[in-house]
Amino acid sequence: MILVVQPNATEKEINHIMERVQELGFTPHLIRGEQRTVIGVVGDETRPSGEALEAIPGIEQALRILKPFKLASREFSSKDRVVQVGKLSIGGGSLALIAGPCAVESREGLDRIAASVKKAGANLLRGGAFKPRTSPYSFQGLGEEGLKILRDIGNKYDMPIVTEVMDVRQVELISRYTDMFQIGARNMQNFDLLREIGQTRIPVLLKRGMSATVKDLLMSAEYILAGGNENVVLCERGVRSFEDSTRNMLDLSAVPNVKGQSHLPIIVDPSHATGRPDLIPAMCSASIAAGADGVHVEVHDCPEKALSDGPQALLPDRFTKLAVELRTIASALGKVIPA
Amino acid sequence: MILVVQPNATEKEINHIMERVQELGFTPHLIRGEQRTVIGVVGDETRPSGEALEAIPGIEQALRILKPFKLASREFSSKDRVVQVGKLSIGGGSLALIAGPCAVESREGLDRIAASVKKAGANLLRGGAFKPRTSPYSFQGLGEEGLKILRDIGNKYDMPIVTEVMDVRQVELISRYTDMFQIGARNMQNFDLLREIGQTRIPVLLKRGMSATVKDLLMSAEYILAGGNENVVLCERGVRSFEDSTRNMLDLSAVPNVKGQSHLPIIVDPSHATGRPDLIPAMCSASIAAGADGVHVEVHDCPEKALSDGPQALLPDRFTKLAVELRTIASALGKVIPA
Amino acid sequence: MILVVQPNATEKEINHIMERVQELGFTPHLIRGEQRTVIGVVGDETRPSGEALEAIPGIEQALRILKPFKLASREFSSKDRVVQVGKLSIGGGSLALIAGPCAVESREGLDRIAASVKKAGANLLRGGAFKPRTSPYSFQGLGEEGLKILRDIGNKYDMPIVTEVMDVRQVELISRYTDMFQIGARNMQNFDLLREIGQTRIPVLLKRGMSATVKDLLMSAEYILAGGNENVVLCERGVRSFEDSTRNMLDLSAVPNVKGQSHLPIIVDPSHATGRPDLIPAMCSASIAAGADGVHVEVHDCPEKALSDGPQALLPDRFTKLAVELRTIASALGKVIPA
Amino acid sequence: MILVVQPNATEKEINHIMERVQELGFTPHLIRGEQRTVIGVVGDETRPSGEALEAIPGIEQALRILKPFKLASREFSSKDRVVQVGKLSIGGGSLALIAGPCAVESREGLDRIAASVKKAGANLLRGGAFKPRTSPYSFQGLGEEGLKILRDIGNKYDMPIVTEVMDVRQVELISRYTDMFQIGARNMQNFDLLREIGQTRIPVLLKRGMSATVKDLLMSAEYILAGGNENVVLCERGVRSFEDSTRNMLDLSAVPNVKGQSHLPIIVDPSHATGRPDLIPAMCSASIAAGADGVHVEVHDCPEKALSDGPQALLPDRFTKLAVELRTIASALGKVIPA
Repeated sequence: MILVVQPNATEKEINHIMERVQELGFTPHLIRGEQRTVIGVVGDETRPSGEALEAIPGIEQALRILKPFKLASREFSSKDRVVQVGKLSIGGGSLALIAGPCAVESREGLDRIAASVKKAGANLLRGGAFKPRTSPYSFQGLGEEGLKILRDIGNKYDMPIVTEVMDVRQVELISRYTDMFQIGARNMQNFDLLREIGQTRIPVLLKRGMSATVKDLLMSAEYILAGGNENVVLCERGVRSFEDSTRNMLDLSAVPNVKGQSHLPIIVDPSHATGRPDLIPAMCSASIAAGADGVHVEVHDCPEKALSDGPQALLPDRFTKLAVELRTIASALGKVIPA
Repeated sequence: MILVVQPNATEKEINHIMERVQELGFTPHLIRGEQRTVIGVVGDETRPSGEALEAIPGIEQALRILKPFKLASREFSSKDRVVQVGKLSIGGGSLALIAGPCAVESREGLDRIAASVKKAGANLLRGGAFKPRTSPYSFQGLGEEGLKILRDIGNKYDMPIVTEVMDVRQVELISRYTDMFQIGARNMQNFDLLREIGQTRIPVLLKRGMSATVKDLLMSAEYILAGGNENVVLCERGVRSFEDSTRNMLDLSAVPNVKGQSHLPIIVDPSHATGRPDLIPAMCSASIAAGADGVHVEVHDCPEKALSDGPQALLPDRFTKLAVELRTIASALGKVIPA
Repeated sequence: MILVVQPNATEKEINHIMERVQELGFTPHLIRGEQRTVIGVVGDETRPSGEALEAIPGIEQALRILKPFKLASREFSSKDRVVQVGKLSIGGGSLALIAGPCAVESREGLDRIAASVKKAGANLLRGGAFKPRTSPYSFQGLGEEGLKILRDIGNKYDMPIVTEVMDVRQVELISRYTDMFQIGARNMQNFDLLREIGQTRIPVLLKRGMSATVKDLLMSAEYILAGGNENVVLCERGVRSFEDSTRNMLDLSAVPNVKGQSHLPIIVDPSHATGRPDLIPAMCSASIAAGADGVHVEVHDCPEKALSDGPQALLPDRFTKLAVELRTIASALGKVIPA
Repeated sequence: MILVVQPNATEKEINHIMERVQELGFTPHLIRGEQRTVIGVVGDETRPSGEALEAIPGIEQALRILKPFKLASREFSSKDRVVQVGKLSIGGGSLALIAGPCAVESREGLDRIAASVKKAGANLLRGGAFKPRTSPYSFQGLGEEGLKILRDIGNKYDMPIVTEVMDVRQVELISRYTDMFQIGARNMQNFDLLREIGQTRIPVLLKRGMSATVKDLLMSAEYILAGGNENVVLCERGVRSFEDSTRNMLDLSAVPNVKGQSHLPIIVDPSHATGRPDLIPAMCSASIAAGADGVHVEVHDCPEKALSDGPQALLPDRFTKLAVELRTIASALGKVIPA
């Protein structure tokens, strides 16, 4: 950490800072500049006591140098992590093509959609049994009944499944059915939930919060990794912005940005990012070209009758066409979308 | 809801939209304009089936007319709600002056700070026992021991207390100690937690999420109100923005904005909004002038030794001076800060 | 336009709204709903008098239906526009690969960089002679001397050139040298400049403002088109956001978003969007995959000695490698980057 | 500046950095930490060569320490600057109450509005003769005829006037009529315009750009000050955000934030910030309580017939009531709104 001393600080204040830095277990290096005095602090600033450095009186700015995450960092592991979800590998050139309806609505409905996306080449089936809804009056999901349906249909089509967990009390129940947890954007900083998932060894798809920086996302992954669960796949799904013609703003540069800093795989969800079926295919193609380890697409065969997020679902035919396009791009880049 | 038909829609598509609107239990009114055909939909669009309207093929835009919250709305109750926390009234011209450290760190430390803020005129004592921290390596709070200390010190100085609840499993425990729950920004859309708190009758301070709109905040309040707990106080605490010299951007216009749409009280937390002690006093004054029902300020007598958020805490002396300023402004506006 | 009447509006107020709508030359259609009365307004709301509708007393909300741009719209021309810059076609499957230094610094320097990017396959040479700098103490460009150098080097390597215009008084001077104007993000709503450029017939690269919506960008294009200059190429270059690890946030969904609404070509500038050479190549690939009509990359052979924006420039070798990657993706999508 | 060396940098690279720092005229101080090597650079980093430091190969991060503005800084002048506009002092406890219509529409209309706001206590009359409009089809202002009317009405009511300048070619013309220039948000980084205004000695109201940080705003002020014009008044008018119920987000903390860093006065414009007459009065009160040197309010006696921005104008009666409220708050804070 670098401490910039206030321009009008007295020698006594500077001495106090130097002493306090040592007291906290760090080594200070004083540099007197033309307009500012700065103190280089040697030692691990990510220790809990690091934060206390910033509150010493007489300091104008405290500049952090180290990244606050460790287990999630590229420095911890230079090799790209490959996460195994059932028989599907995510990462290392093997791409996830996740598809399914927003919510599990009925056995017949999910069966039809799964048949279609499986045939198109999707390799991971999604569907919500517990739904986070901004309105208490909206459909909240089928609960355990939805989990059962999802499991059965996954088995029928030989696809691993992913479903959202919202509440620490659901972890045990959902773990009996799913191959992969999803932690939604709204729960990215639900730290108790992260800790609980960290105690399992089930793979988890961790979505970026709507106002989370890339660093925040990696810090949330760190919570799960710190519990011993190494099977974390990140997901960029758009952030809030002033642009009002899309539901969120897809920050696609997060893909290479994460890959430079972390060994974890990252996929992209253009469905929630844009909220617009007319933009989803182009953003899926762009995601693969940007180096993402997969994409996540909501598909529904009758969006106008969907109980949740119908307006943003892709029709099965459009998804089938998209899957062809994605294989073309993946292939041009030397990657594969395993069946 | 108003459905704008795509410019190239066929008569068949328009007929399908009309039929589907009726099927969903609404009455359609067709208006053919010069460049667009629109369909006015009469009926309560906030019903679950309202969302399905937007996904009918052939629709370019669906414009919602009604606010999606009901119990939180001005139309539900034109009279300002006054929330009682112990003997303190919040709302209706009676202002909360909430103060205390970010986290409860020790009995002695909290005692000293409480003595000081009580003397200055604070009327609600805050302190965290369970802390949401972006890093798993930071201090996470004293847990139940912290609750006991907070309760005892509150009693000693005859101040009601408020403390954060992060996990549905903590609700029962915390309810045995606290006078008011706080739901933090990161949990504003933790819907299971909102539902649990809605089942209690304990007052709750609901903080705005970092990327929540005013409407989102009111929808989260709706979850609590829908459970039967009417004792909701909202809290503006800043949102994420591109401005990098403050921790968040304080959206003070949310105060009159909420008051126009809702009967619920709203207070302001300039500590988390700005993260800068040099800006907190001016923003407290501005909050009262804007019509807020109180302010929330972190106070610590030795910020450089605080275990959490030291850099944003106000010193007790500065808080004492601030309390005088706030009483002056409150008084000029015909309001009171009860002791 | 749809006018939503305030819930407590009197019959007299409703009558006044109906009359005022007619006075302004529109036809009102009254729909009485369960909770709100709405008035559908038939007529061209993009006329100047349309704005006045919103200010009629008794109106809660005014919802616009039409896009405010005409000449830039897909409805004006369903065919993709191809803009000719010298011998280079931009649009219709022909991609621009724009490269060069941020600023023209010297004849020798530009010659070296141009030789390198030309060899790699760039087809449009960029370089600033007049530079918008946030600090009055930074290098402001070589002015006319820079234009001469750029023109000469463009001729030497048989590449058309593009350079920024910042001031209405420079239009005539720059038009004597350049093949294409660039209007920078900071001037996207410098309406007098847009009007002046609209009077020329020289192609223009119009960059999106840092807080401009896609609609705002198209409205600025409309200013130029309204003057009679049809040779507009749009450029997505990132917008301001809370993410602090990149210079701006690249909104890549703007590419299909613009293409759905407008016939104008759109390219992407990942250099300014990310400000990070490590992210630029992935974002160039993603841009082409998203359907962009080209990319714009800053290249410098000695970034540490660049007089402007050195930290975000790509080295010539990295650019050469990138050009190969882009041709692979373009080819997979059936597009070409003409030499 | 602090240069953080990449973790894998070689000794040779570190030596190159040290040499390059010296070559650029700075003195390097090497500190070897546990996980990172950093180089403290002594010297004035705001010199043009400072930027080149960031592009030296082997550097992971370059952390700036100094503020890039000088003449605008508190360190340049610790005393609050008071700007004189005609007989009105802005700053130092004397508050500007700026009012008038968005655009000058007619002599009679402006006369009526001016009579009303003068009587209420406004001390500076505003009105646009040249209007920046997002649509080329909207009313663009009366031009010189508008300036004449504004001047005459200002004289009639003995009020100084302020009007917007958009184009460098208008500076001379407008300077013949106005007491104060306004530079609008869209032109905050129109550097040629800033330079031209810096050559005059006429006071200028410089509005914050819609995506400008506080530092950006002060850098734009620096352009004007560097030209020798010291009469700069800053204006906070809201920035773009995801909140969709207000036109912009008013960043009121910018007021104490600017005052801590700069000696320049700053006022607030809640009309453009919120775009909602129902929020303007509360935000004016909050601005004064936050320490602003004045407020800027659009007033129109018939918003539904205004040619520009009618929906956000306050009615004269509401303004009169507001002026009383503002005097009450100003007086409680020991400040005055001179007649």
